[in-house]
Amino acid sequence: MKPRPDFKSEIDTPALVIDLDVLEANIARMQSFFDGQTANLRPHFKTHKCPPIARRQLRAGAKGITCAKVGEAEVLVQAGVKDILIANQVVGGLKIRRLARLLRRARVTVAVDEARNVKDLSAAAAAAGAPLGVLVEVDIGMGRCGVKPGKEAVELARCVARCPGLEFRGLQGYEGHLVLQAPGGDKDRLTLEALSLLVKTVGALCRAGIECKEVSGGGTGTYRTSGAHPVMSEIQAGSYATMDARYAKVTPEFGNALFCVVTIVNRPKKNVAIGDAGMKSLTTEFGMPQAWGIRGVKVERLAEEHTLMRVRGEGARLVPGDKILLVPSHGCTTFNLHDRVYGVRDGSVECRWRIAARGRAE
Amino acid sequence: MKPRPDFKSEIDTPALVIDLDVLEANIARMQSFFDGQTANLRPHFKTHKCPPIARRQLRAGAKGITCAKVGEAEVLVQAGVKDILIANQVVGGLKIRRLARLLRRARVTVAVDEARNVKDLSAAAAAAGAPLGVLVEVDIGMGRCGVKPGKEAVELARCVARCPGLEFRGLQGYEGHLVLQAPGGDKDRLTLEALSLLVKTVGALCRAGIECKEVSGGGTGTYRTSGAHPVMSEIQAGSYATMDARYAKVTPEFGNALFCVVTIVNRPKKNVAIGDAGMKSLTTEFGMPQAWGIRGVKVERLAEEHTLMRVRGEGARLVPGDKILLVPSHGCTTFNLHDRVYGVRDGSVECRWRIAARGRAE
Repeated sequence: MKPRPDFKSEIDTPALVIDLDVLEANIARMQSFFDGQTANLRPHFKTHKCPPIARRQLRAGAKGITCAKVGEAEVLVQAGVKDILIANQVVGGLKIRRLARLLRRARVTVAVDEARNVKDLSAAAAAAGAPLGVLVEVDIGMGRCGVKPGKEAVELARCVARCPGLEFRGLQGYEGHLVLQAPGGDKDRLTLEALSLLVKTVGALCRAGIECKEVSGGGTGTYRTSGAHPVMSEIQAGSYATMDARYAKVTPEFGNALFCVVTIVNRPKKNVAIGDAGMKSLTTEFGMPQAWGIRGVKVERLAEEHTLMRVRGEGARLVPGDKILLVPSHGCTTFNLHDRVYGVRDGSVECRWRIAARGRAE
Repeated sequence: MKPRPDFKSEIDTPALVIDLDVLEANIARMQSFFDGQTANLRPHFKTHKCPPIARRQLRAGAKGITCAKVGEAEVLVQAGVKDILIANQVVGGLKIRRLARLLRRARVTVAVDEARNVKDLSAAAAAAGAPLGVLVEVDIGMGRCGVKPGKEAVELARCVARCPGLEFRGLQGYEGHLVLQAPGGDKDRLTLEALSLLVKTVGALCRAGIECKEVSGGGTGTYRTSGAHPVMSEIQAGSYATMDARYAKVTPEFGNALFCVVTIVNRPKKNVAIGDAGMKSLTTEFGMPQAWGIRGVKVERLAEEHTLMRVRGEGARLVPGDKILLVPSHGCTTFNLHDRVYGVRDGSVECRWRIAARGRAE
């Protein structure tokens, strides 16, 4: 009898792996939700930073890709993606020049919340001779970026509409303060309240005679409410495709596709095991990574290069050299630590993808 | 009059920069301490992961380089470094094979704390036909890796000495639980107590007729005590060269050479400024990054791509587009987020170094 293949034996550690069946099921599940809605999906690239995953999302039916930074947009353009939203403000001469260089190769849209920045973008886009799309970002409760809903947004939209090189495309509003809230309770009500600020602003634009074609926002944690809301034209969900231990509590309808393979390197005590993945391979701002497929293993702490785990039962039988899987607590920042991810199916490695936009925060 | 150059205008953000004058002064200061001691310096590469800095440390007089992982050792060998200590256990077939491939190109030493691992290393080194140096790691209080001082260490040393392909070179003991303790108080006493476990083990090896040529350990936070101790032959200090906000409280005799350049992207409130460096560019396990060269700026929190800062006074005059410097709280994990670092001198960029071992945790 042929032994069942074990992909872990093919991979040196620490390393990220993706279960390709689960990834594909997650992408299909989210797309099928949007196939029944007015809004479409514009998956966020900041999570996986991996062009082959973005291409799968587009093939499934997503209308374009969202990203966080110009550096990520450069990678997407290089990978042939033709419709890109940079869902943040792009500030500073060097960065705006880099943005302008992308305009002839893709449809690019950017968020703004300040008139001076709009003028800078306008000058660069006009010089580039290709239009830059603009969404006016509205602060719908997160208190980080965005203008006030209503009048202030209308004024900035008018400023955009008057500026050469720019195309006013609509609004962005991100309920980032709600995406991680567990389902149930007042989550839907609070999400609807936040979205009502976008409804109000779309109304004000309409009364001012300014056409608002797009309203972009939302995330994996609110897609059921925001994605079904008539005001939204697109949802910027990212985590759903690969998931992580934190989102498992928020959107359990998606399976976990992302793991870190860890080798046990020491067993200093009966109830302690040390793994070889530390803070340089995993992140902890959303809590500790979770053991997968083995009982009695609890990550207690990460050192720079070591995983400190409390073990009992099955976990206590681990010996140095054994490899186990951990589910990262936060996929977005974990992908950002790794240069590559292995795609596995039926117990063996099927592909190796470069995380091409890793570290492209600039 | 020629305007004073400002390196910040040459660099898109977020980006790491090193003040080259301060870096060189730190390297010279640490080396001059060791020039008066029995022990020498084996700087730890895991901090900066940057071959050009390692070469400067070697030119100043360091005896070799310490690193944490085989992936880092591969980068060092590629960069021409000839004497490398991997100060951790190297566990697992794939990794040991990679280690063995380095033996013909450099003098490599590795830490061990388990007989089965010693056998695996022996088989690979014997097959490679070039010796692998081995230090038996002794747990001197951190409780993570290492055998017990005394008898247990002697037994493992004897096992190493009997194994073909391996050269027993001595001991490793790292007082990692003490390196971040502020100077004064019981720090020196506790450090000496930890080192006394190495003294005891060297004595036991001597009585067993096993020659112990090297005793490696220590760090930036304990170098004054461990580097002056007669039992130590080399100190694995890393942070001193570039420093960070955490080590500034431990070893203020070294200047801060490492900064992250951040652009202000939003001013949502009178007392709040938002920068463009988040958790993908800075780390927080040792606290928040600290503003440098400007008063009235306090980092309160990092989002994935944003710095949330409380501002007043001089800080309250910041406008979008302004660039400021932050001192990372933990250099080692911050370098690991960036692909390059800019070297600056006299207000302009002098060089751009690739952080070649970034992400090489495997």
